[in-house]
Amino acid sequence: MNILHPNPDRLVTDMLDGFVRSHPGLARLPGTQVIVRSQLDQKVGLVSGGGSGHEPAHAGYVGYGMLDAAVAGQIFTSPTPNEVLNAIRAVDRGLGVLLIIKNYTGDVMNFEMAAELAQDEGIAVEKVIVADDVAVENSTFTIGRRGVAGTVFVHKIAGASAQRGDSLQEVKRIADKVAARVFSMGLALSPCILPTTGKPSFDLPAGEVEIGIGIHGEPGVRRGSIAPLTELVDMLIDRVAAESSLQKSDEVALMINGMGATPLAELGVCAHHAMARLDQIGVKIHKSLLGEYMTSLNMAGFSITVLKLDSELKSLLDETTHAPAWR
Amino acid sequence: MNILHPNPDRLVTDMLDGFVRSHPGLARLPGTQVIVRSQLDQKVGLVSGGGSGHEPAHAGYVGYGMLDAAVAGQIFTSPTPNEVLNAIRAVDRGLGVLLIIKNYTGDVMNFEMAAELAQDEGIAVEKVIVADDVAVENSTFTIGRRGVAGTVFVHKIAGASAQRGDSLQEVKRIADKVAARVFSMGLALSPCILPTTGKPSFDLPAGEVEIGIGIHGEPGVRRGSIAPLTELVDMLIDRVAAESSLQKSDEVALMINGMGATPLAELGVCAHHAMARLDQIGVKIHKSLLGEYMTSLNMAGFSITVLKLDSELKSLLDETTHAPAWR
Repeated sequence: MNILHPNPDRLVTDMLDGFVRSHPGLARLPGTQVIVRSQLDQKVGLVSGGGSGHEPAHAGYVGYGMLDAAVAGQIFTSPTPNEVLNAIRAVDRGLGVLLIIKNYTGDVMNFEMAAELAQDEGIAVEKVIVADDVAVENSTFTIGRRGVAGTVFVHKIAGASAQRGDSLQEVKRIADKVAARVFSMGLALSPCILPTTGKPSFDLPAGEVEIGIGIHGEPGVRRGSIAPLTELVDMLIDRVAAESSLQKSDEVALMINGMGATPLAELGVCAHHAMARLDQIGVKIHKSLLGEYMTSLNMAGFSITVLKLDSELKSLLDETTHAPAWR
Repeated sequence: MNILHPNPDRLVTDMLDGFVRSHPGLARLPGTQVIVRSQLDQKVGLVSGGGSGHEPAHAGYVGYGMLDAAVAGQIFTSPTPNEVLNAIRAVDRGLGVLLIIKNYTGDVMNFEMAAELAQDEGIAVEKVIVADDVAVENSTFTIGRRGVAGTVFVHKIAGASAQRGDSLQEVKRIADKVAARVFSMGLALSPCILPTTGKPSFDLPAGEVEIGIGIHGEPGVRRGSIAPLTELVDMLIDRVAAESSLQKSDEVALMINGMGATPLAELGVCAHHAMARLDQIGVKIHKSLLGEYMTSLNMAGFSITVLKLDSELKSLLDETTHAPAWR
């Protein structure tokens, strides 16, 4: 972040309030950092969240057909169990709540603790853990793979399942299926600047690229000179394709996600080359998302996510949602 | 831009192709840099455009209820008269075409030349020139005020007018009315990097802010140390309010527009403070837009736009559009 905030303690609540006033249909639960739909439907509740700094995740995915609540922690900091519990209580309509958790040790611990507290109150709670980042097996903040932009596909498809009235067990089955079929990898051309310290999250000389970065300023798995974009895109696509065992005539949803400071013009070029590579492999692109879905403050870079579809996932993906950041 | 493009000559067409494949309903006219709706309605045609580097402007505003075509020049370079003529020909359904032109000398000249060529072919063409930037009276690239993010409100409202079947003269009247009532001002915390040279558009030491910047890397009108965000936002709102003679109980649409590298988290904080200032003035906010609408590659900064509404503009603003970048 580059801006001097007059009251850093209020950074997240001010941000959420600006967001909520710009999006009718959302509200902030008073006294919390929880964003909820102002009108809840009689259905299974969906809750996600995590540290702030990844906007539009997750508040931008609250709305008809996606999440019912998003819990925002401080910048790059897991929300507390109590905040998650606030969200669970707010959205439960007696049909239970599914938690969609990105795989970070802090998030998993705090969401699970909240789930236990809610279960003690008689609320049925299930969870899905998303670990779509194929760059690393473990990381600074994770046991197992990190959860990154692919999480948004879980929000969308599980959201459509809940919206049509599926049971908690069915919504969980579908969410788990998406989580098992979604694969992401990213790179950075610059670090992000942490608002707490004003310092870059890692050191990256101009002209170099960090491959396999996370969304919390964790450095990547390797570094190189900036190669032409086609090479970088091919490398990411090929890695994701290998991890997901992509076959000719598979059908996928693609997401080209900007990390925060990458011009949409560049993302468009990335999308063009990524689709050309998938065309070469013979994969059919059912839907392609282009823009900022899961950012890392002002990091320059992008990630590529591929979701392997089947007919069930495809029809749920195509359902209507009114969440402001889905497009 | 930070990315090495394997073929710089194809940067804009590759970007447009990535964009079009991600947005069903759009197409690129073969052999051109013109994006059109794949299906045109029987109505007055709306065309805008300008240099690239401002994405999602203008291709993102092509769709039902907004533009019928957007003409993309090279980065920060006006499209040629011939390209604009291609767009006019493509969208005219015999009811005439309105050109929405941001006030830059090159754009105005080339769009006007295209209008004359089209009129010679028997197509009725009108134009509206948008000059919403209150920071400067003239600039590097302009006689008179520059056209910036407020242009998007002209697309939206004139688009709704055309979509409901208004005549060319009526669509022009409404577009002129919006242009006369829309006011913007921006600031930058960093310059953008020009892909042609790899150099920053102006020199701005860390910790300083450039007030009144344009969207082409033109430097601003003055420079200062970074002040707390509330002061910066108040300054922009107050200037825009004075220029638009905003009165207590006026009703407005507000846009908080990111310049390319500003995290959405920061834009949310800006929106919160901007709305608080308008609340103080006693102005009613009918609608608030938050995000990237008219960028300057990877410049860090934001602009604030205020549109003074009346009942006619309000109802057109609220009409449905399917253009991908309107939200």
